[in-house]
Amino acid sequence: MAAHVANRKAQLEVIMLVRDPEVCQSINDNHFNCKYFPEHKLPENVIATTDAKTALLGADYCLHAVPVQFSASFLQGIVDYVDPSLPFISLSKGLELNTLRMMSQIIPQALRNPRQPFIALSGPSFALELMNKLPTAMVVASKDKKLANAVQQLLASDHLRISTSRDVTGVEIAGALKNVLAIAAGIVEGMKLGNNSMAALVAQGCSEIRWLATKMGAKPTTITGLSGTGDIMLTCFVNLSRNRTVGVRLGSGEKLDDILNSMAQVAEGVSTAGAVIALAQKYNVKMPVLTAVARIIDNELTPKKAVLELMNLPQVEEV
Amino acid sequence: MAAHVANRKAQLEVIMLVRDPEVCQSINDNHFNCKYFPEHKLPENVIATTDAKTALLGADYCLHAVPVQFSASFLQGIVDYVDPSLPFISLSKGLELNTLRMMSQIIPQALRNPRQPFIALSGPSFALELMNKLPTAMVVASKDKKLANAVQQLLASDHLRISTSRDVTGVEIAGALKNVLAIAAGIVEGMKLGNNSMAALVAQGCSEIRWLATKMGAKPTTITGLSGTGDIMLTCFVNLSRNRTVGVRLGSGEKLDDILNSMAQVAEGVSTAGAVIALAQKYNVKMPVLTAVARIIDNELTPKKAVLELMNLPQVEEV
Repeated sequence: MAAHVANRKAQLEVIMLVRDPEVCQSINDNHFNCKYFPEHKLPENVIATTDAKTALLGADYCLHAVPVQFSASFLQGIVDYVDPSLPFISLSKGLELNTLRMMSQIIPQALRNPRQPFIALSGPSFALELMNKLPTAMVVASKDKKLANAVQQLLASDHLRISTSRDVTGVEIAGALKNVLAIAAGIVEGMKLGNNSMAALVAQGCSEIRWLATKMGAKPTTITGLSGTGDIMLTCFVNLSRNRTVGVRLGSGEKLDDILNSMAQVAEGVSTAGAVIALAQKYNVKMPVLTAVARIIDNELTPKKAVLELMNLPQVEEV
Repeated sequence: MAAHVANRKAQLEVIMLVRDPEVCQSINDNHFNCKYFPEHKLPENVIATTDAKTALLGADYCLHAVPVQFSASFLQGIVDYVDPSLPFISLSKGLELNTLRMMSQIIPQALRNPRQPFIALSGPSFALELMNKLPTAMVVASKDKKLANAVQQLLASDHLRISTSRDVTGVEIAGALKNVLAIAAGIVEGMKLGNNSMAALVAQGCSEIRWLATKMGAKPTTITGLSGTGDIMLTCFVNLSRNRTVGVRLGSGEKLDDILNSMAQVAEGVSTAGAVIALAQKYNVKMPVLTAVARIIDNELTPKKAVLELMNLPQVEEV
């Protein structure tokens, strides 16, 4: 996203706050992110730093891409450098374990500023394709319509379409739960159950997410839109996501601990799955597919038994 | 589907009406469909005939799988052998060119019996996976709830889940238009536009189908269910459908005539695309993706120009 914004406006200075001094140096000296995108040259107006104060000083916008489970503690550590009017554009997708908080709650609460401007950015967007300037469409959601429009202006380009939305809950819940559904899709693939099951499972998952989200106040059309169905299809049917990979390995019989120990990056869906059962209870929604993922991850259910259970649910009238 | 029903109940006699005497003989002598499923042994209670009278005499149900554009003329030729109470379970998906009729209209009108019992069977179901007993879920839709329940009993098995629905229009329209959307998905693949565009395109297509279908009286939840989003995902993201193949070849620059001349089987989406522009006008619905497919097929638009047009549509608030 830094590369995209920098490409969009050459006069902008885009500062990336990174943890790894080696990555920092590689970006500044050679314009490559040696760790995640070693083959992709970054624009020269992308500058890296490991110092939060430098990154945040005088910033117009902050694109927040810290994994959900680490966001609160990270933000508490930088709160002193954050201007209370700095808009946070959140790219992180998931629910905080135990608290069930979404990013729109985590960010203002961690920064101790309920009015910290917040925008959720979501939609089907593999980073590499965006960096390669392939056509992409995303949604920016904010309660503040003016702010959403401003972020649309900041990000939209000839290869990135940006829709706006006021349904922050819908965009956030869809973005969080699609990672859990992606694990389910991976499990079906790992068990070699075929494409028919995959499509039935993902359609059912979309419905479950819509049922929950609407009870939480989201609009159903958000869940059937780009940040819902669009992103779900990308994550579930295309083989590139970490969450889906976790599912494939679970489905082929590997143990969760072994899978997680072997992965370099965070699979948000694993933590978010833990929040699904609590949410389903809190909002009194039946979510057989998504809660099955949570139970598989908690080792309460084998993938095989889960499939049997799902196939044996009562066959009812479609509503 | 014949194999599935026959497997389901060994005491049933399932008669397949086929045109090709060689296929007929191969099924009866060796229990193989030498043309379409040469490697799949059929149950012994599947019997083939080329004679409509033999096939229809004393039948309890008729599974109708004649391509939409040929259904009316075919049915007019067999009307004398059809009992007026014989339920027709339609597997054909599409809209009749010029008349814009769906199968629920074509069948009773061609049989000159407005009360001919009708059921639409739809959902994400590649035949080969069903034949291999992989888990599959489908929908049967009928205005007659009792009949829908009876067909559910006929078809449901330990590897096929059947939901019922009364929304015949929704199930039929989704089934018809997904073939047009599959051509669009193929075009995006043929043009190598990447997975982000594919997901954005299919999500937009799902919305367009929902907008049209609800104006025609369908329930939005049908379009977001198995026979809508479920089947659309299968057809658009998995590489096995004829319609998608037509799109891939259009997207890589081939001419429609050359593509169609080289194909053995019917791609319903090509005919149905012709009906899309008329429907969009009749019901006053904006359908930029689906009508672009129709214009590409009619040679009024190149795939490249279509993508440019879609990327340059106004970027609005998501509704």
